[in-house]
Amino acid sequence: MKASQFFISTLKEAPADAEVVSHKLMMRAGMIKRLGAGIYNYMPMGLRVIRKVEKIIREEMDAAGAIECLMPVIQPAELWQETGRFDKMGPELLRVKDRHGRDFIVQPTSEEVITDIARQELRSYRQLPKNFYHIQTKFRDERRPRFGVMRGREFTMKDAYSFDRDVASAGRSYDNMYAAYGKIFDRLGLQYRAVAADTGAIGGDRSHEFQVIAETGEDAIVYCPTSDYAANIELAEGLALSASRGAAAQALAKTPTPGKSTCEDVALLLGLPLARTVKSLVLATDELDKDGVIAKTQVWLLLVRGDHELNEVKAGKIEGLKGGFRFATVGEIESRFGCKPGYLGPIGAKDIKIVADRTVANMADFVCGANEADFHLTGVNWGRDLPEPDLVADIRNVVAGDPSPDGKGVLAIQRGIEVGHVFYLGTRYSAAMNASFLDENGKPALMEMGCYGIGVTRILGAAIEQNNDARGIIWPDSIAPFTVVICPIGADRSADVKAAAEKLYGELKALGVDVLLDDRGERPGAMFADWELIGVPHRVVLGDRGLKEGQVEYQGRRDEAATKLAVGDVLGHLKGLLKL
Amino acid sequence: MKASQFFISTLKEAPADAEVVSHKLMMRAGMIKRLGAGIYNYMPMGLRVIRKVEKIIREEMDAAGAIECLMPVIQPAELWQETGRFDKMGPELLRVKDRHGRDFIVQPTSEEVITDIARQELRSYRQLPKNFYHIQTKFRDERRPRFGVMRGREFTMKDAYSFDRDVASAGRSYDNMYAAYGKIFDRLGLQYRAVAADTGAIGGDRSHEFQVIAETGEDAIVYCPTSDYAANIELAEGLALSASRGAAAQALAKTPTPGKSTCEDVALLLGLPLARTVKSLVLATDELDKDGVIAKTQVWLLLVRGDHELNEVKAGKIEGLKGGFRFATVGEIESRFGCKPGYLGPIGAKDIKIVADRTVANMADFVCGANEADFHLTGVNWGRDLPEPDLVADIRNVVAGDPSPDGKGVLAIQRGIEVGHVFYLGTRYSAAMNASFLDENGKPALMEMGCYGIGVTRILGAAIEQNNDARGIIWPDSIAPFTVVICPIGADRSADVKAAAEKLYGELKALGVDVLLDDRGERPGAMFADWELIGVPHRVVLGDRGLKEGQVEYQGRRDEAATKLAVGDVLGHLKGLLKL
Repeated sequence: MKASQFFISTLKEAPADAEVVSHKLMMRAGMIKRLGAGIYNYMPMGLRVIRKVEKIIREEMDAAGAIECLMPVIQPAELWQETGRFDKMGPELLRVKDRHGRDFIVQPTSEEVITDIARQELRSYRQLPKNFYHIQTKFRDERRPRFGVMRGREFTMKDAYSFDRDVASAGRSYDNMYAAYGKIFDRLGLQYRAVAADTGAIGGDRSHEFQVIAETGEDAIVYCPTSDYAANIELAEGLALSASRGAAAQALAKTPTPGKSTCEDVALLLGLPLARTVKSLVLATDELDKDGVIAKTQVWLLLVRGDHELNEVKAGKIEGLKGGFRFATVGEIESRFGCKPGYLGPIGAKDIKIVADRTVANMADFVCGANEADFHLTGVNWGRDLPEPDLVADIRNVVAGDPSPDGKGVLAIQRGIEVGHVFYLGTRYSAAMNASFLDENGKPALMEMGCYGIGVTRILGAAIEQNNDARGIIWPDSIAPFTVVICPIGADRSADVKAAAEKLYGELKALGVDVLLDDRGERPGAMFADWELIGVPHRVVLGDRGLKEGQVEYQGRRDEAATKLAVGDVLGHLKGLLKL
Repeated sequence: MKASQFFISTLKEAPADAEVVSHKLMMRAGMIKRLGAGIYNYMPMGLRVIRKVEKIIREEMDAAGAIECLMPVIQPAELWQETGRFDKMGPELLRVKDRHGRDFIVQPTSEEVITDIARQELRSYRQLPKNFYHIQTKFRDERRPRFGVMRGREFTMKDAYSFDRDVASAGRSYDNMYAAYGKIFDRLGLQYRAVAADTGAIGGDRSHEFQVIAETGEDAIVYCPTSDYAANIELAEGLALSASRGAAAQALAKTPTPGKSTCEDVALLLGLPLARTVKSLVLATDELDKDGVIAKTQVWLLLVRGDHELNEVKAGKIEGLKGGFRFATVGEIESRFGCKPGYLGPIGAKDIKIVADRTVANMADFVCGANEADFHLTGVNWGRDLPEPDLVADIRNVVAGDPSPDGKGVLAIQRGIEVGHVFYLGTRYSAAMNASFLDENGKPALMEMGCYGIGVTRILGAAIEQNNDARGIIWPDSIAPFTVVICPIGADRSADVKAAAEKLYGELKALGVDVLLDDRGERPGAMFADWELIGVPHRVVLGDRGLKEGQVEYQGRRDEAATKLAVGDVLGHLKGLLKL
């Protein structure tokens, strides 16, 4: 490609609404252009990256035996009503009526449609397993779209769906996709981690997120550097931090802590480590009568150590909280604890259920609120000062340094950006839509399903969050909009420069290299700034002076400075770098 | 590809709602699957064809210097309000509100968005010309979706938009796209014709449709076999069929024609050629007052020869009818002509404007209604029996055998399916959206635009309408889902057959041929029927008996019978056919 036949449009400044570096750099490099909130035009430079990402995904999906199809963007509501999602999904599901007033949705995903295809097409166990995928435009009407392609409303996603005859076979389909995802992210040239994720209502342990490692990532991912344990923060198991409860050494005492309503403030005031304090969190669950009116409310006190945080996903797995919970109101708190929030504790509160985190359950001589404004209790001990908790459970986020649940080391935490997800669905959709097949005995059985997504356009943002510097984007070779850029200096004045640039361009093209020749006639500074911003990984500069000495300059996008090469060596040098 | 790793699903019968052969065959061959009215899943077999069509289009668009981008499916209403199309377009424009109640549309085309990009990005004459295209999902909420992918609601289209500094340059961009389209349809392997089309309000002669020739086509296309004249029926110019008016030879006479209200019936009754009769068509135009109430109605009588048909597009170009017309009501007809429809004529009607087709204006001794029920007039002559018409114009459809407007022969008519359209837009969109650039003198000027569409998914239907037989589809090599199919017979019983099939499969794959090995173990009859239905152009059959004699069978999809080839010759034979 020659620059004069392409469209290059770079900006010195990013628009004010761009909050994260990938959004800023994609706008500045002319990869995307905003059309509306969370809706972007993919400009020619950005589309080249998307196409390369899609090609890698497609090749690996095909190699894994998945079969590509294409399901519509606009889908009839009927199928979504069969699974209940038409009503259950919130306003992020974009609903639309056609000219006849019939309901449709703009697809955010395609479980319903693929299950509809499967129940019609897959009749016999002989046709299973099957895995269908498509790469298609999706829409999710995010309440607050932001971060460019990272949380847009319209985006491109690859979604695959497997259909199996039984759980064992579904497990093999899952493992197959898990392995394919590894190959895909390897080829994309990204640092990533596959982490176990929560399976919600489905249960089981078959859910993994593929997270691109980036300091700016929204997700916390937990791993053990000395084993292969990895999970997202919602799932990562927190162990009790002491093996057993210590003996009580202090007497129970009430201490004035005026205005000190946080564990941090209390610990500071009392000169104690934060890890000696216990945080009280008050939840509520409502029982509704048959008219949907609240008949009874149960209040829950969840206790985590002062330096820990409640994990709401884990709390939601507790029997009694599974059906959904809310934080208690100030009124509810005051009526049960006789005290305003900030000074709450488990002693003396009435008609509540107490859930202690595993670590809290093993604490002795701890500090908690006295259920009296401006007072805390010290030297609190389970059994002696209050009854044992109603329930002990893992309800906190793990922190770096915690023991790994596999017993093989201590946990570390990184930030990540979720770009892929493999998920065992079981019969959630096949049961709702009656997608069954006939087994060897001619008996109908529900298909076991899995779903496997990759956020195609989000990968661009994640790759940039992981790979950038002050000058711009640093694309991995495999997905760069161009692999090599040739920058001739003064080609308009020097026939030698022009000829040498054209010669190298032709040679690289003949090798199948995705090379761009910058024939725009820009000044060297502007030209270099453009390509560093755009993030092309390999640059060759040809100038009249250098050529007279038989030299050209090569610079990798991560290199501090350019390397001088003999004219005759540059092709070989690039072939080596590009492994050709 | 091996069949066992692909998804093949053929049907013996087409669903009842499939009206045309392409729809029936695409359903039967498992290329598409209905999701809703005019909304289809593209199944793996159909998607392969789509991808091949897209690849050819993309390669030729790139070669022509067009630059690919990707504009969103969901577009903000604001831009469509700027051009007025948000309100002007009928219910075929699918409108949707987001969670905040803001208006969006599901794009049927992208003039507004690309013009918005151009007005921001193309600031200087130095950046022009530019041509951007995308291949994207479109939605048009057709009142009566039918014919499968031929008139669906959701479909894939390639749309390109050119931006030029002046009319001359826009003409070159247009010619460039016209030439690229020729290359595309040549490579698609389709018989097609580029025909001049009406430019509507834009004017000028820069609009061509690319029509795939098919007897079942919805459009009539007109061409001159002895010259390069070609136009669609709306545009093709009808000349007067006699060079000048003959002298009056008959006296005017009123003849009873009871119950004969059509030209055909009257000609038959009177024993005259249909070409001696004149058909009367009554139109009306309304003048509205400032409150939108009809202030005045003008009635028009349009006269075409009895064997001709009125062309409403041509009628709509007449001064006075340009603003829109309707057919007159029976009441209006009776009040002006004093007679019910069926016996109308130009003599004696009051307060009407008479427009005669060119051919009618040169007729003598013709027959028309007497404006009296059950009577016609014979021997009617202009000037003698009634005044000259108010206007003489080309208002009829041409018919086969008419003189070609270029004077180089006579016209023929074919049926066609419109699959592409190139259109000079002028400043229609750039003026509405103020898309201007600075010219050499630093003065702002509006960009001259063109738009260029190809119906990607419709091409599948058109190709099938043109290429099919009783057994199924006959794909051109370039877009067949597979180019060659290898059918081993009894591979489960014969290791020789299996080995020979695998060997040929490997050899063809190594040559880059898109080959499918049918390893499903189907009976020969079922296997052959599948591939004839699906339409793979080249088939090789290997059987144990043949192999023992060193022979395999080759059959082209259009061949009457198979050809026996020596095992060693089949690869060479295929290489010859595929020009490898």
